[in-house]
Amino acid sequence: MDLPDEFSFINKIKPAKLKQSSCIIGIGDDAAVYRANSNKDQVVCVDTMCEEVHFSRKTMTPFDIGWKAVAVNISDIAAMGGKPLYYLVAIAVPNSWKEEELLNVYEGMAAIADKYNIDLIGGDTVSTKGSLVIAVTVIGELPTGKALLRSSAMPGDIVFTTGTLGNSAAGLEILLHQEENTYKSFEKELIVFHQRPVPQVEAGLILSSLNERVSLNDISDGLASECNEIAEASNVSIEIDEHALPISNALKNYSLDDQLNWVYYGGEEYQLVGTTSKQHYLQIEEKMKQANIQVTKIGTVKEKGEFPVMIRKDGRSLELKKLGYNHFREGEK
Amino acid sequence: MDLPDEFSFINKIKPAKLKQSSCIIGIGDDAAVYRANSNKDQVVCVDTMCEEVHFSRKTMTPFDIGWKAVAVNISDIAAMGGKPLYYLVAIAVPNSWKEEELLNVYEGMAAIADKYNIDLIGGDTVSTKGSLVIAVTVIGELPTGKALLRSSAMPGDIVFTTGTLGNSAAGLEILLHQEENTYKSFEKELIVFHQRPVPQVEAGLILSSLNERVSLNDISDGLASECNEIAEASNVSIEIDEHALPISNALKNYSLDDQLNWVYYGGEEYQLVGTTSKQHYLQIEEKMKQANIQVTKIGTVKEKGEFPVMIRKDGRSLELKKLGYNHFREGEK
Repeated sequence: MDLPDEFSFINKIKPAKLKQSSCIIGIGDDAAVYRANSNKDQVVCVDTMCEEVHFSRKTMTPFDIGWKAVAVNISDIAAMGGKPLYYLVAIAVPNSWKEEELLNVYEGMAAIADKYNIDLIGGDTVSTKGSLVIAVTVIGELPTGKALLRSSAMPGDIVFTTGTLGNSAAGLEILLHQEENTYKSFEKELIVFHQRPVPQVEAGLILSSLNERVSLNDISDGLASECNEIAEASNVSIEIDEHALPISNALKNYSLDDQLNWVYYGGEEYQLVGTTSKQHYLQIEEKMKQANIQVTKIGTVKEKGEFPVMIRKDGRSLELKKLGYNHFREGEK
Repeated sequence: MDLPDEFSFINKIKPAKLKQSSCIIGIGDDAAVYRANSNKDQVVCVDTMCEEVHFSRKTMTPFDIGWKAVAVNISDIAAMGGKPLYYLVAIAVPNSWKEEELLNVYEGMAAIADKYNIDLIGGDTVSTKGSLVIAVTVIGELPTGKALLRSSAMPGDIVFTTGTLGNSAAGLEILLHQEENTYKSFEKELIVFHQRPVPQVEAGLILSSLNERVSLNDISDGLASECNEIAEASNVSIEIDEHALPISNALKNYSLDDQLNWVYYGGEEYQLVGTTSKQHYLQIEEKMKQANIQVTKIGTVKEKGEFPVMIRKDGRSLELKKLGYNHFREGEK
């Protein structure tokens, strides 16, 4: 890419109009300025995606890359029970990228931003001699004191998850090992889960709006890793009922071994997994039903035992090891 | 670098104690949560540094790299008249880096964070097959409605700058072209300006606390580029009095041509340049003097003329072109 001027590029990606009226200064000065709602807490996160580590041009279009870079951060806000409001984009672009491709990345970001009514308020576009790196910061808000932490689980809680699991990993598998012209319709469906994940903002907002204790994580690194995090942070053990796991019809085309491997270790789902009391779970089920959001009871929280997470299947309990996606290991491949 | 587990690394960089009491959740959950001061506006920015584009291992230690990555963002907050409170770090690390070196980067960040009393509240450390990329997000606050914009300059204003100019670029020149064992004491002094820039937070706070119109930029891309930005955003012209430019004693060891080249086009100063009315400037001078901050009148704002920025020297006016540092061009070298 050979851009004559950073400013001319900024003008191309700068939104014509801000959606959030609380934004005072958007892109174009040294920093962005906004007025926080005084009845809310501020919630902020940053996530980074690197070419050939977190995504590949072979499996993701520039539009998909942009979409996903923002989606994974919106998902982190959702996992706290927050509502996303703003995002900032730091992007390091290698010379091999064309300006049009980079603009497609920003179009993918704008597409998901429009869906969630969030504004691009800042960023930095620089060149790199390495591969593409995108770091997105998302800022949101949540009701004061109502952040949903992974450390809130208690023995006796029900473990629940939104949506169906394992789809994104199956989609990646198809993208990596199958020719495009051979895709069946269920395979195309699974691919969309991988390329255009949909963060569960509405579910998170329902969970933080009910005045009850909920522990919550988003599933970025696979169910095994996320449940281990909740168990460790809360000092409890979690037992997953393998027969209760919500599997999509598309995923049921594969062997049970494949299904479970993707559900436990696949990651990049961006569904939510959490725990709450039995009594409160009934209320959550009702609210989610009204909002047309699938929620499934997949296990129970126990007193801390030998293993942080166990699978209950066919009357036996087995350890579910924390073998989620680890970026450092992945980078060594 | 071959880290066994992202979590063990996070534990090494996680601050033992948060300095800002408004932080509710720091590092360790899906996102950080803090409570905004309801009498303040929120100010946020992100800046990215890439190895071999923005810095080199030959001229910057890992500690320096960390320091500077946070400093440049604190400087953007200062340029809005804000007080920095929190930072988040997204870092993509190549395999060639050792864990110890990466920890040194975080030590550099922690050192400047301590100086400004700001907290590390989030981040993401991932591996990359490319070169090191650091994107730092800084969040701060400023008095409601008092953000200092580059679009506020008016004809008749005085143009002022903090500190002395050109030092950082001279420091880089020395680092690139001279053997370490030959450094004289003034050369060492200039090198520090380049490796450990000091953002002008106190000066920015003084400017935003006085209830007057001030336009402001930080000097990241050289005086020529920053003055052009103010002139264009404010729809005015700026005339710089070349004889008035504040030059350090260390820089006076070089030819006048070198001095001026570094002042106008060098960049990475992180001093502030701004404009305000004549009357208000006297008040600023007084307040800065009390705070022991050097401030110098370097020019005046004119009605918009043929050129956005001119230099006044020896009775003549010349155009000062916008030839600041451009990351894209730099990347092509």
